Amino acid sequence: MLLVVGGVAAGLSAAARARRLDPRLEITVLEKGPVISYGACGLPYLVEGRVRDPRQLIVYTPEYFRQERRIDVRTGAHVVAVSHPRREVQLASGERLRYDRLVLATGARCDTSGVAGAEQPHVFTLHTLGDAERMRAFLRDRRPKTAAVVGAGYIGVEAADALRRHGLRVTLLERGSNVLLRDDPAFTAAVRKQLEDHGVELRCGAAVDSVDALAADMVVLSIGFRPNVELAAQAGAEIGRTGAVGTDDRMETSVRGIFAAGDCAEVRHLVTGRPTWIPLGTTANKTGRVAGANAAGGAPERFPGVVGTSIVGIFGRAFATTGLSQSEARREGFSPVAARIDAPSRPRYYNGSTTTVELVADRQTARLLGGSVIGDDGAAGRIDVIAAALQARMRLDDFESLDLAYSPPFSPVWDPLLIAAQQLRKQF
Amino acid sequence: MLLVVGGVAAGLSAAARARRLDPRLEITVLEKGPVISYGACGLPYLVEGRVRDPRQLIVYTPEYFRQERRIDVRTGAHVVAVSHPRREVQLASGERLRYDRLVLATGARCDTSGVAGAEQPHVFTLHTLGDAERMRAFLRDRRPKTAAVVGAGYIGVEAADALRRHGLRVTLLERGSNVLLRDDPAFTAAVRKQLEDHGVELRCGAAVDSVDALAADMVVLSIGFRPNVELAAQAGAEIGRTGAVGTDDRMETSVRGIFAAGDCAEVRHLVTGRPTWIPLGTTANKTGRVAGANAAGGAPERFPGVVGTSIVGIFGRAFATTGLSQSEARREGFSPVAARIDAPSRPRYYNGSTTTVELVADRQTARLLGGSVIGDDGAAGRIDVIAAALQARMRLDDFESLDLAYSPPFSPVWDPLLIAAQQLRKQF
Repeated sequence: MLLVVGGVAAGLSAAARARRLDPRLEITVLEKGPVISYGACGLPYLVEGRVRDPRQLIVYTPEYFRQERRIDVRTGAHVVAVSHPRREVQLASGERLRYDRLVLATGARCDTSGVAGAEQPHVFTLHTLGDAERMRAFLRDRRPKTAAVVGAGYIGVEAADALRRHGLRVTLLERGSNVLLRDDPAFTAAVRKQLEDHGVELRCGAAVDSVDALAADMVVLSIGFRPNVELAAQAGAEIGRTGAVGTDDRMETSVRGIFAAGDCAEVRHLVTGRPTWIPLGTTANKTGRVAGANAAGGAPERFPGVVGTSIVGIFGRAFATTGLSQSEARREGFSPVAARIDAPSRPRYYNGSTTTVELVADRQTARLLGGSVIGDDGAAGRIDVIAAALQARMRLDDFESLDLAYSPPFSPVWDPLLIAAQQLRKQF
Repeated sequence: MLLVVGGVAAGLSAAARARRLDPRLEITVLEKGPVISYGACGLPYLVEGRVRDPRQLIVYTPEYFRQERRIDVRTGAHVVAVSHPRREVQLASGERLRYDRLVLATGARCDTSGVAGAEQPHVFTLHTLGDAERMRAFLRDRRPKTAAVVGAGYIGVEAADALRRHGLRVTLLERGSNVLLRDDPAFTAAVRKQLEDHGVELRCGAAVDSVDALAADMVVLSIGFRPNVELAAQAGAEIGRTGAVGTDDRMETSVRGIFAAGDCAEVRHLVTGRPTWIPLGTTANKTGRVAGANAAGGAPERFPGVVGTSIVGIFGRAFATTGLSQSEARREGFSPVAARIDAPSRPRYYNGSTTTVELVADRQTARLLGGSVIGDDGAAGRIDVIAAALQARMRLDDFESLDLAYSPPFSPVWDPLLIAAQQLRKQF
C-alpha cells in the first residue's frame, strides 16, 4: 500500500508514476481540500479574468485517477497524525489508514498569523482555487477601488498585475529591499520601473503587521509562505535548515520508507551544492515523479536538484532569474563577477526590443553562477539556456561560444546572452 | 600589417577584434563588393518588403571603421592572388599589398554553373544586397505571377515564403528528399505541410539542370552554395574534406600566419568531433573574432566548434534543428534512439499552441546527440536549450531534470523539452 498525502502537483505526480512502474500496487491519495490537481500558478490569471472558468485550471479529477489509473483519490481527507512505527496515518475524521510506503506532498501554506486583522472579509490570500474564487466574487460584488498587496514575491507581483488590470489603484508593499526573492538591486529597480509604468506603486522596506493600517478596499497577503512539515516532523523525519523536510536525491526523508516531494521538501541547489527550499510547480512535479518511482520500489531514480529558475510576467514583460545573483553568490562564498547588458532581442530591422541580461561567474574558476533576463520576447528561452548551462556547470568561455539559433524573426546574430558573456569576460 | 580579405561578418569581426586587442596594429580590410557589413540573413525580408530600405541591413560603413576603429576598409577591392612566401596579395587592379598576418574571410558563393539558362534576367540568386534589390525591382516592374525556387535550404525556403507573400504562385524544387539540410523525413513532412498550408508547392526529388524547363515568370536559384577557397588553396592552405578551408581551433589554416573564418572555413562539429562546414552568420562572427584575436597575436583564443543549430521561420512558424538527426547520427557511427512528441507551448488556459520536439540520444552512453523543435512560440529558446546541452555533452537523465522557467504566459509546467526527454528515456 502506497499512501500519498497531498493531491496537487507533487502528490499526483508521485501516485501516477508509481502506478506506471507497478501496475499492481495499491495506491491512495489523500487531499485535504475539495479539489485535486489544480494549476496553482494559474490563480492570478483567474483573478485577472483571462482564465474565466476555474475548471480550466483543474487538470485531472478524482474520477480520472480512479478509472484511468486505478488510484484511489480522496478529497476532504485531512491527515492529522502519522505513526510510522505502526505505518499508519489518522484523518481528522478519526479514520486510520495503513501504509507500507508514504509520500508526503503536503505543500506549503500562507501563514498570515503575524498580521492583525487578516481574518476580515476584504483580506485575501491567493493559494487555492477557493481563494481565487472568493477574490473574484469580491471584485464583482464590491467593486473595490483600491488594493494593497503585501509581499512582492511571485504571487504578490502577479496579483498586483491582475488587480491593476481590473482598474484598481494598487500598492505593492514589500518588507525587504528586493522583490521576487532575488537579492539584486538592479533587478528590483527594473521591476519597480515596469510596475510604476503601469500604475502600480511599489514600496519596499514596508513591514505590515496590521491590515487596518492599510487604507485599501481590499488587501492581498502574499507573505508567510511556509512548508507544511508537521506530519513529517511527527513521523520523525529531519527538518532541514531551510525549514522544509530534508530529503536525499531519491526524495526519501531521514525516515526509511517516507518520501517527501513538492513544496514541503528541500532539494539540492546545484550551484551552491547545499539544500534549498524553492517551492515551485515544476520542481513539485519532478520531485513527485522521483518520490513516486522510489516509493514504488523499482530501480532507484534520482533528482539531482535545481538551479532556482523562475520567471514572472509583469504587464507583458518577462522578469526571469536563475542561479545566484552577485550578492547571493558572495554570500555563498564565491568571488563573483557580473556583467549586465542591454541588447536587442532581434535585429533592429525586425522589431527587436531591448533585452537586459546579467550574468554572474566565479572569478577563480570562471564557472557560471547565475543570471537574469528581462525582456518583452525571448526571455523565457534565454533564461532556460543559462539554467541549462548552470546545470552543466559550464564555464564562461564555453558559454560564450554557444551555438544559438539565429534568424531575424527570432534573434539577432549576436544573441544578448553572448554579448553579456563577452562583456563579463572582459572582467577576467 | 594585418590584412583581412572579406568585409562582411567574419572579416569585419576579425578586424574589429584585432583592433581592440592591439590599438597600434595596421589593419586593412579588402572587400570585393560595393558594400560591407550587411546582414545577409535579412535579404529574404528585404525581398518580402518587411525591410523597406536596404540600408537597414547595413550595420557599418567603411567610414565608421575608418573613423571609429582606424581600420582601412576598401570596397571594390578584389583579391585575385596571394603569395605567402612574399606575404603579398594582388588585387584585380594589379595593385599589390603586403601583410604580416592574413585573415581569409572570403565567404561562399552560389555556383549556378550547373544550371543552363541561369544568366537570364528573370533568374536570380539571393546572396548579396544587389541580388535582393534586383529581385525587388523585378517584382515591382514586371509583376510576375509565378515563381520557381530551386533548392530548399534556408534561403530557398525563406525566398519561397517572401515571394508567396507577394501573391505569386510559388513552387519550391529540391533535388534531395529532405529540406533545410536535415536528413529527417518527419521534419521535412512538417515543413511540407506548413508550406502547402500557405500555398507553396514543395517538390522533392526534383533535379533542375535547366531554367528553361521551369514554366515560371521568375526563378530563384538557391543551390550550389560553395566556400570560396581559391585564395587559401593558392596560399598552400589545406582544404578539408568538406571542401572548405581547414582550420585548427585558433582558426589558423595549415599555413602559419594565415587564418580563415566565416563561410569559407571548416570548424569542428562538437557532436561528431569532426570538421564540418555549416556556413552561418553566427559562426562567421564568432570565428572572425577568434581569427582576429589570434592574428593580432595576443593571448591565444580558441573556437571550440559548433553543434549545428539553425532556425527558419516559415509563414510565422519556427522550424529549428540542432546536432544530429537520427539518420545523421546513425551515419556518424552512433546507435541513436529518438523520441518525437507534440505538447502545448503554454498551458491550454493560456493559449498554448502545439510544439513538436524531437530528441536524439545515443543508446550506449545516453548522451544527447541532437534535436528539433517546431512551433509558433518559444521554439527558438527551446532549440537553444538543446544546443547548450549538446555543447555541454549532457546526458539524457540530466536533461530530463533541467530546471526550466515556468509561468503560464511563457511555458507549461512540463516543458515540451522535458516531455520529449521522458518519452525518450522509455526507450532505454
